[in-house]
Formats: sequence, structure tokens, C-alpha cells
Amino acid sequence: MALMKAAVFVEKNRIVVEEKPIPDIGPLDALLRITTTTICGTDVHILRGEYPVAKGLIVGHEPVGVIEKLGAQVQGLHEGQRVIAGAITPSGHSNACLCGCSAQDGVGTAHGFKAIGGWKFGNIIDGCQAEYVRVPDAMVNLSPIPDQLSDEQVLMCPDIMSTGFSGAERGGVILGDTVAVFALGPIGLCAVAGARLLGASTIIGVDAVAERVSVARRMGADHIVDFTQGNVVEQIMALTAGRGVDVAIEALGTQATFEAALRVLRPGGTLSSLGVYSADLHIPLGPYAAGLGDYRIITSLCPGGKERMRRLMQVVASGRVDVSPLVTHRMRLDDIEAAYELFAHQRNGVMKVAITP
Amino acid sequence: MALMKAAVFVEKNRIVVEEKPIPDIGPLDALLRITTTTICGTDVHILRGEYPVAKGLIVGHEPVGVIEKLGAQVQGLHEGQRVIAGAITPSGHSNACLCGCSAQDGVGTAHGFKAIGGWKFGNIIDGCQAEYVRVPDAMVNLSPIPDQLSDEQVLMCPDIMSTGFSGAERGGVILGDTVAVFALGPIGLCAVAGARLLGASTIIGVDAVAERVSVARRMGADHIVDFTQGNVVEQIMALTAGRGVDVAIEALGTQATFEAALRVLRPGGTLSSLGVYSADLHIPLGPYAAGLGDYRIITSLCPGGKERMRRLMQVVASGRVDVSPLVTHRMRLDDIEAAYELFAHQRNGVMKVAITP
Amino acid sequence: MALMKAAVFVEKNRIVVEEKPIPDIGPLDALLRITTTTICGTDVHILRGEYPVAKGLIVGHEPVGVIEKLGAQVQGLHEGQRVIAGAITPSGHSNACLCGCSAQDGVGTAHGFKAIGGWKFGNIIDGCQAEYVRVPDAMVNLSPIPDQLSDEQVLMCPDIMSTGFSGAERGGVILGDTVAVFALGPIGLCAVAGARLLGASTIIGVDAVAERVSVARRMGADHIVDFTQGNVVEQIMALTAGRGVDVAIEALGTQATFEAALRVLRPGGTLSSLGVYSADLHIPLGPYAAGLGDYRIITSLCPGGKERMRRLMQVVASGRVDVSPLVTHRMRLDDIEAAYELFAHQRNGVMKVAITP
Amino acid sequence: MALMKAAVFVEKNRIVVEEKPIPDIGPLDALLRITTTTICGTDVHILRGEYPVAKGLIVGHEPVGVIEKLGAQVQGLHEGQRVIAGAITPSGHSNACLCGCSAQDGVGTAHGFKAIGGWKFGNIIDGCQAEYVRVPDAMVNLSPIPDQLSDEQVLMCPDIMSTGFSGAERGGVILGDTVAVFALGPIGLCAVAGARLLGASTIIGVDAVAERVSVARRMGADHIVDFTQGNVVEQIMALTAGRGVDVAIEALGTQATFEAALRVLRPGGTLSSLGVYSADLHIPLGPYAAGLGDYRIITSLCPGGKERMRRLMQVVASGRVDVSPLVTHRMRLDDIEAAYELFAHQRNGVMKVAITP
Repeated sequence: MALMKAAVFVEKNRIVVEEKPIPDIGPLDALLRITTTTICGTDVHILRGEYPVAKGLIVGHEPVGVIEKLGAQVQGLHEGQRVIAGAITPSGHSNACLCGCSAQDGVGTAHGFKAIGGWKFGNIIDGCQAEYVRVPDAMVNLSPIPDQLSDEQVLMCPDIMSTGFSGAERGGVILGDTVAVFALGPIGLCAVAGARLLGASTIIGVDAVAERVSVARRMGADHIVDFTQGNVVEQIMALTAGRGVDVAIEALGTQATFEAALRVLRPGGTLSSLGVYSADLHIPLGPYAAGLGDYRIITSLCPGGKERMRRLMQVVASGRVDVSPLVTHRMRLDDIEAAYELFAHQRNGVMKVAITP
Repeated sequence: MALMKAAVFVEKNRIVVEEKPIPDIGPLDALLRITTTTICGTDVHILRGEYPVAKGLIVGHEPVGVIEKLGAQVQGLHEGQRVIAGAITPSGHSNACLCGCSAQDGVGTAHGFKAIGGWKFGNIIDGCQAEYVRVPDAMVNLSPIPDQLSDEQVLMCPDIMSTGFSGAERGGVILGDTVAVFALGPIGLCAVAGARLLGASTIIGVDAVAERVSVARRMGADHIVDFTQGNVVEQIMALTAGRGVDVAIEALGTQATFEAALRVLRPGGTLSSLGVYSADLHIPLGPYAAGLGDYRIITSLCPGGKERMRRLMQVVASGRVDVSPLVTHRMRLDDIEAAYELFAHQRNGVMKVAITP
Repeated sequence: MALMKAAVFVEKNRIVVEEKPIPDIGPLDALLRITTTTICGTDVHILRGEYPVAKGLIVGHEPVGVIEKLGAQVQGLHEGQRVIAGAITPSGHSNACLCGCSAQDGVGTAHGFKAIGGWKFGNIIDGCQAEYVRVPDAMVNLSPIPDQLSDEQVLMCPDIMSTGFSGAERGGVILGDTVAVFALGPIGLCAVAGARLLGASTIIGVDAVAERVSVARRMGADHIVDFTQGNVVEQIMALTAGRGVDVAIEALGTQATFEAALRVLRPGGTLSSLGVYSADLHIPLGPYAAGLGDYRIITSLCPGGKERMRRLMQVVASGRVDVSPLVTHRMRLDDIEAAYELFAHQRNGVMKVAITP
Repeated sequence: MALMKAAVFVEKNRIVVEEKPIPDIGPLDALLRITTTTICGTDVHILRGEYPVAKGLIVGHEPVGVIEKLGAQVQGLHEGQRVIAGAITPSGHSNACLCGCSAQDGVGTAHGFKAIGGWKFGNIIDGCQAEYVRVPDAMVNLSPIPDQLSDEQVLMCPDIMSTGFSGAERGGVILGDTVAVFALGPIGLCAVAGARLLGASTIIGVDAVAERVSVARRMGADHIVDFTQGNVVEQIMALTAGRGVDVAIEALGTQATFEAALRVLRPGGTLSSLGVYSADLHIPLGPYAAGLGDYRIITSLCPGGKERMRRLMQVVASGRVDVSPLVTHRMRLDDIEAAYELFAHQRNGVMKVAITP
């Protein structure tokens, strides 16, 4: 049995590189040889035991690679092809998929829907911080990489761009909107880029870290609000001359950012929430207009599937967005423990670490 | 100065009939002679001092009447015409109106948006529990009543139908959806009717009052869940074979109904909130799927304007919905204190009281 | 090799019952034993050679049956289960499927889109006017029939209801709309029902056949316009007091009905076209407002997939719509030549013929 | 009676500068002193007698100016304010306005809708190629110009940007779409910019004029197809590797461009038509997929109203789009006959001529 190296969740606070068997594949699967991958904030939650996964699971959900082998029923792809898959890998045949909600894919449930059910890699099946990964439902999920794009250029597509952009898309950003984005980590930065891509004319980023603020300006932020320099809500209301914003995108997952996002909405505005929360939320009555403000609160999980990946890579290929500033560090899979250490503590201005096996 | 009778908010727990001057009108206004009106749950909040209005204000926001006089600039209407106006009377020219959010009309604010700003009658200007009412922006707000419809047949249009239906419309109900409606007061009953009108194939009403349950079945509820007979969430999950509902409509304004509505959603579902809340809300982490469930929480204020009223009256005229069971009592304006007493305490199976001057 | 009976397209004007091998199935397929099926207007086009299919093809695309055998990779279904599939059987994994356009499924094309590509049964693979049919992508397409529903009650779901309702859905019918439906064959009748299901308050059916008009009234038409009794456009404009309709649904496929549908639109209205046309169309400049009328012309192919079928059966199960009047005749597969004869010439008030093997 | 200079349609092929009375205004109007305006392609149709207007009418519908005087009922604006109004000036109170279709505003019609009814300036009331213009419904239509923007920077907002952008908006352009724009006059160029603003990742412009092609590239076109260099449809299909485009925007108003736009659509795609046509159109059966291709044909009239203008000026102010290359010539109102001569014959690389009184 051939072996490979992989980052395995052993127990709380221990993700280590181990030897594991190269995965077998079924008739609808593909075996992908990983050429580049990365670490996500969610992986840090797993590391810390805040998000539970099975011991022994290979982690990671952002694969860039080459097709090593295809299942017997897979058509339209070929071995040796450079491809990516989304972090979310829908089956294509659940009721959730068939009504436009594929991230909540619930194959194996009685009725086809399962909360967060489309997230499989590094969650309920082995992930891609490894030399190889089994990709389920390959015909639904694998999207060829345009020749002119490097691995790093498409590395943000599986999760960071897909999630960040969805904050603007599902928030309903339209031409001429004013948008605020709360927290400028990689997801928030892509939410800024997404708002700009959809026609927002005023984008306000909220953060205090100089590197992030600088990238935010390059990616489309017109104004920056520094939460260490006074009340965020007041600053945003001043910037908008008392009007508030059409769409507020929450990209951190805390009560403080959620509540501030609600408070800066104009009546009839939308709070688009991307953060992964770890505690109950509280909605204050006044900013909620006692339920009569025509507000919308929208939560989104990263959209997946090959068509989504194709479109995101097309956005990169066209030069509309340059996400290359997000990759601040490059490390080997063998050194992934150090990469987690760096990333989890946000040292050295790290935003994303490209990992190569 | 000619006088009229009107129901006036004097102080907390005192709404009385007083003599007041018949209103003057400006060039864009109409003077409406009220022929029928009614009391809303919101008026009870005003009576109890829970929703603040100015002392001396004439209350009421559901007018059916005859045009007594038109402002000099008003065209397209004529004196003597039978008309209704919505509870919400947008100006037609605020930025809120011009971007499809007219209930949040904010004329007089710097930027055209104001939370709940479209609600004027009995809130920030004199209302229609009176012999006459001044209707602002008459060309935007007055809609002629089809000849074949009685006052009572259109009495639910200004608020109850418009609000209740909007719970289904803004909730995004589509063909074949499963919908739950929490609380079957007049608004909830119209939410049931609205869900049915938009093609929901399974409608679950939640209440325990026999009269309301009986009307709910006539208006489209397929199943009733009685909250006195066990856990509501469990009952609804059992009815839907564990799937949950596509849209949950909250029509009461409490933490319990809001939270239950969230808990019965299928992943990707929508909580459409109509209730007027009087306390902060709490969102539990698990049912919220930590922010990753693709849920939407939508709040709505009653849509207004003459086109909305025209459409609602057309729905009544076509026989699609019969809201006549909602009018359970008929009283005189002179007896409105007794009507408030009856309505506020929900005595004698009251749902709505038709008031005639 | 086991044999079965099947209706085969032999040549222009000849569809006959022949013995054919019972189909083999692949790992993702199901073998369905047909219990009831029917003939569609499109089948008549095939019979007449107006729509080209391969000689020797088994025709028919409206299957109701029992799962005889499942492919090795199929999960979530079991043999012996009563199921339907849509007339359109998307793969679930084409780019078309993944961007919400599954009827244009183009597996095998370079880019995943193919016009009318989702229509496979009786078009590009053997159909279901037979004792057995192979269903591709069974997990995407097979939907269990609720126990309480008979074969005939769900027989309209695969095509007639799905297509007819889509005329209203894609036409964007909203609460209180006025809708005209041109031609009241089975599709047009379901368009009437669909418009009613979505909240249209005034529905105008256009036809001259007494049986159809009678069924139209039962399915939701408020007014009937008889094209033998004067100019259709003038009649509809009179019925709407000169306003025109919000949505006009074309359900025949001719220049005359297409053009009349355009001419009765209010400015900003939508022409929703369901018909299968056999000649070029002509858009007159005036009714098109020289391109400045904010009109929309929408064409639709029957939506398929198991979630669509589930929803349509739910609509039937809930009693919202009674499509049983559409089945006017019942015949055996052995007599299908006579059934085609009857149906193609619209003899004896035929609307749909239920065929049983 | 004070007089002013104005460009008047005298008869076919004669628009001349005449002295006309400075307009009186009503209570809801504003008198605007024009500081900059321009000539539109539609004005050329008027000049040539192809689009009928009353003899003696002042033409022009793209006003930039200063409020000279306000009607007695106008609030929220002040004299001396720099403002623009849209080419389309809705009333704010017609049924068309109240259901989101304000360009088809039909005040004075029985039911509130009138095709092209929102276009008033230089069509049914005196226009703005003059020293002064009366603006109806000033509170609905006048939008203050941000201080930092010059007249020329906002001169494209009233019509060219609003119309061009609407081609992308109503065409439903989404992130990652491929879009073709047929004809790169000022409207087509703004359609290119609009598609880019909404996230299209591949934009193909079709034209053969070097200056226009050059500006198109600056405004967002990724590829140019020259119709003099071979079959346009074939070139676009080759550029998209046989897939076709998601949205095709027609910006000329001819059968050739309309038909080519239809032919390059992927199945399920949208033809968004902006052109003003002068003859009937013809839809070929094959590219129309016999009505079964899930195609949409959308026509649009320029959106107006102050909120639209505010958003467009915000787009300019934010630097998202630079429309300054469109203004190629500057002339005086006194010389407007020469300006028409230049513009109508597209001499000297003219795109738009800024006219100042």
C-alpha cells in the first residue's frame, strides 16, 4: 500500500504530519495530487478543538493539484489535468443541490438538506493538506485551471474568494451601494473586492492592522475605519453623512462586529454575515427597529462546485482582482506545524500561507 | 371652525373620543371622510404607553372612506370617490421610495431614509379613528374601491393583509414550499393566506385559540400545531419528517416565537419576521449553524401606496381570499373606548372590530 | 435477452408498438417499469416528422412507474419504489446544472450547455412509451410518489404541470397581477393554474373550445376570451380597462398568439413563451415600443429533476390544484397507435390520454 | 416676459436656436438654469423626423444646471444648488412608479402606465437645450451634484450612463459572466463599463471605429470583434470556445445587431436590448431554439429619478468609471446647429458634444 504525507488532527492542539495510505477512489471520484494548498482560519478552530472533527482525520479544504487518477464513471476530465475543487464539494444530486442551495447538501439525510453538509474536505472526509486527496463527485467539483494561471493565483478560489465574494453577492450589493466590511482578514479583504466587483461605489473597511488596511485599499476600500480610534458606528455614520450603509458585511464572527454591522445599516439595509461564530448572538431592539426596519440578515457558507470555481478563476484571469497580496508566506507540507504556529498567532504580517507538498 | 369626533391618545391607558377641528389640507393632500376603520394591535401598544406618541394625537391607521375634498394640486381623483389608503403613506419622492423601500420613507431627513418613517397616520400625524382624516400625498396613497366591494371587504387591506401577505412575499415563498406561521392573530392569518396565495403546498399554523385555528384552516392552513400540546419545534419537525420548513413566518413579536421559527428552518431557509418586538432578541448558536447555515432573517414593515392597495383589493374582488371572518365585531366610533377594552383583552373571540363614525 | 413492448418511431407518420430488448442499465441509472405514461403534443410533432428523432427510437417522456433495478452506484432509492421522473432529466453535474439552468444540460459538450440538452427521453435516448425505461442519473431524477396519490394524479407532473407552471414562474407573476394565457390546451390550462397558484388576481384564458374553456374556469380562469368572437387584443384591452396585462403566457407556438401576447402587455410587462414554434417569429415595431417599453420576452423549457417533481407532487397532494380533468381518455400501450390517432386529431374532446402497458 | 435662447424643432431637418419665454413653473416644479447639456442620438432621430415631436418644441433631455427657482411646494432643495435630473423624469405617484417601473410613468392615463411615458424633456414637454428648463416633480427628479465633480463629469449621468449601465443591470450580469456588447457608441461604451462594474469577467465589444474601440478597451472591454473582419457570430463563438455569452447587450437598434446578439447567446442566456429600433424585428427559429432555449429578451428605457442620479454620480465620484473620454467636443448653444451637423454625421471622431449656453 503506497503511502503519502498528510497533516492529521491527532488531538486538541496537535496537527502533525504523518504517513497515511494514498486514498482509494470510487467510480465517481478523482484522486488529486496536491501541488499547492493553504491553511484556513477554520483549520485553526479545528486545531484548538473549537470545531470538532474525528481524531486521525486529514485536515485542509483548499486544493490545487493535478488529476492523478479518475473513477471509472468520470467523464469530461483527464488524468494529468491541472484542476481545483471548492472547499465545499456538493454531490449535485441532493434536493439541496437541486434547489440552488448546494452548500447545504445533505446526501445521506432523509430529505437532502443538512446544515453545513456540503463541507466535506477536512471535516467529514480526509482533506487536502496532504500529497493526495480523494475528491468526491469529481464531475461536479473539478474545474480545470486556465493555463496562464499559476497555482498561487488560483489558491484563493476554493474558499477565500468564494466566501468573501458571496458576502457581497448574497448581501445583494447593487450599483452605487455604500458597503461596510467588518474585519479585513483574507475573507474580509475578498468581501471588499467582491463589493467592488459588483458595483459598490463607496466601500468602508474596518480594521486596525496596517498590512491589512494597506491591502484593503489596493483591493477596493475607499475609506478605512480604525476601531482603535473611536466608536466604529459613529465613524461610519459620519462618513455616510448620517445615512448609513446599504450593505454591511460581517467577516469575523463576533457579537461586537455583528452588532456594529446592524447599527450602521440604513433602514431597509442588509447585514451579510460571513463569520463563523462561537457564541450566541444578541440583537438589540433599537437598532433592529423593533422588527419594523425592513432589515435583512443573511448568512452564507462558501459556494462550491466546478462552475463557481470556473467563474472565480475567470475573474482572476481577467485581471479584475489581484489576490496575490494575500499570499504572504510559502512553506512545505513537512513544515506545516510551523505554518499553523505562524498562522494561528498571526505573526509576521501573515495573511495566507501557501503550502506545497 | 367645524368640529368632528376623534379617538385621541390623552395619556397612558387613556384613549377617548373628543371633539377636534376637521383638518385643513394642503395642495397635495386629501380630506377623507371616514366610513369604516378599525383598531390594530399597535394601537393597543400606544394605549398602554408601550409605543410612544404625542399626547393629543388622533390614533388609527386603517382608513376606508370617501374623498371630501382634494388639494389644489391633486389630479386623477375626484371628490365623492370611495377610497382607501394604506397604513403606511409614503411620499413617493424620498430616496427610500425611489429605491423600492417606501415603508422607510424619510422625507425631512438628510438622506431620505428613516426607520419606520412611512408610518404616519396615528404615529406622527393625526390618524383615522375619527370622522375625517387628512391624507398626505393623496396621488401616491389613495386607491379607489371597486364598486362591488363593501367597506368591510376592504378594511383589512390597509394593514392586516398588506403586512400578513408581505411575510410570505419577502420570505420568498415559492411553489411547493412548506411554510410555518407562528401565531394566528389577524396578521398571522393573513400570512397563512399569503403563503397559500404564493403557492406554498404545506402550511403549518401555530396557535392554541380555537376560533383562530378554525379560521386558519379556512384561510389555507393544512396543519395546526398547538403549543399547549407539546414542544412546537418537535411537532413541526415531525410533521415535516425531519426536513424542516422552507419559510417560517413570525407574527407575534416574542423571543419564543422568533427562536422557534429559527429552529424549524431547513438549512438555507428563511425566517420572515412580522412581529413588533418589545425586547432584545437572542439567536442561539446551534440553530444558527454558527453562521454557516445559509439562513436569512427578513423583517418587514407593512407595504403601502395606492398600487399596493389596488392589488390587495383586486385579490379580494377576485374571491381568492375571504378575509370577512376576521371582522368579528362592529361598533360605533362613540363607543371606541369599549372597543379598545374588548380588543385589548381579546374578549368574546374578537379578531377585528369594524368601527363606523 | 428479455423483450418488452414499446412505441417506436419507425418513420414519418409511423409510430408502432414493437418488441425491443429490456434496457441494460449503468451504475448511475435505474430501470423503471412503467405503470402509466401519456402522449405529448411534442410526440405528435415527432410522429409527423416535424421534430427529427432517430428511426427506431422509443418515444415518450412522461414516466410513472416502479423501480425494477438500480445501478450499482445509486443510493437513497430502493427497488419496488413508486417514482416519477421529469420529462427533462438533467445530469446534475454540467455547468448548466450548476448555474441554475439544468434544462439546458449539455454533458458531452465542451462547456456544459446545450440548447434543449436536458430533454433526453424519447429525444436522444429511448423513451417511456414502453414497458420499461432506463432512467439516467437516477439520484438526480427519480422522486418517490406519495402513497396517497394515484398514477393518474401525478401523470401531469413530469411535463404538463412543470412546463405550464413555469410559464407563470419565469414570467415573474406576483400577487395581484393580471395574466392572460393564450391557448388552453393541457399546457395552457396548467399555466392558468400556475398563475393562480402564484397569486394572480385576474386570469384571462384565450380559446374557443368549449371543453377547454370549461376546464379553464375550474382551474382558475376569471375571464375567457373567444378568438372566434372578435379581435383578441381588443377584447383583452377592454377587459383590463385599457391597462393591459402584467404577464402574457403564450402556450401554443404560433406567430398569431405570440404577437397578440405582446400587444396586450402593459408597458413594463412580460411575455412568457411556452410554445414550441415551427417558424421564424416577427416582432412588430409599435407594440414593441421601438425597444423602449421595458418589455421582457422569456422562453422556458420544462424544468426537471427530482426536487421539482417532489414539489409538484406536493402541490397535487395538498389539493391546491386538481389536474384530473385533463385525463380524458385511458388506453393500453398495445393500442397506442389509436391513441396517437385520437390525440393528434383532438377527437372526442381529448386532452390527455393515460397509457398503461 | 423674459426671454431665453433655446434649440427648437421647427420642422424636419431644422432645429434652430430661437428666443423663447423663460418657462413659468408650478408648485412642484423647479426652474433650472442650464450650465451644460448635450445632444443624444435620439435628438438626431427627432431632427430627421424619424421620431415625431411637436413643431416648436425645445429639444434635449440631458440637463446639468443650477436651481434658479423652486415651486412653492418643493422641499429639501434650495435655489442656487447645482443639480442634475435624469432624461426620464417620473412623477413618483403613478402606478408604474409604485411598482418599480417608473420609466413607463403614465400620469394622465387611466391606469398609470404609458409606454415611454417617463420621457418628457424634449419629447412631450420643452427640453433642456436652452438657457432654462422647467423640471417637473422636482423633489422626485433633482439630485445635487457632489462639489468635487465638474459639469462634464456628470453630463453622462442623465442618459448615457443610466441607459448603458441598465443594459448590464437588467440583463442580469453576475460575477464571472461573459458579455458581448454590440456597437460601441456612447451607450454601448457605458454598457461595457456597466458590465465591468457588475463583475463580468470577459467583455467583448463589437465595433469597427478605431476611436471607439480604443475607448472601449479603457472602459473595460477585454476583446474587440471587428465586424469588417469576418462574421461577428463566428468570431465571438471562437473567442468563447464555442460556449457563447451569458449576456449579449444590443446598443444600436438594428436587425443585424439584434440577431447577432441572439445567435451568440449560450442556452439560457439573456439578450439585453438598449437600441431604439426603427423597423420590425425578426427572430430566426433556430437560434431561438424553437422557443425552448430558456432565453430571455429584455428591453430597457433609461432609468431616471434622483436616487438613480445620486448613485450614478457616486460611481463617478468614486473613480470606478471614467466617462470623460466620451466628451470629445465642446460647443456653445448658439452653435448648436453646427453641433447637430457634426454629431449627426459622426465627423471628427465625435462621441459626445458638451453644449454650454
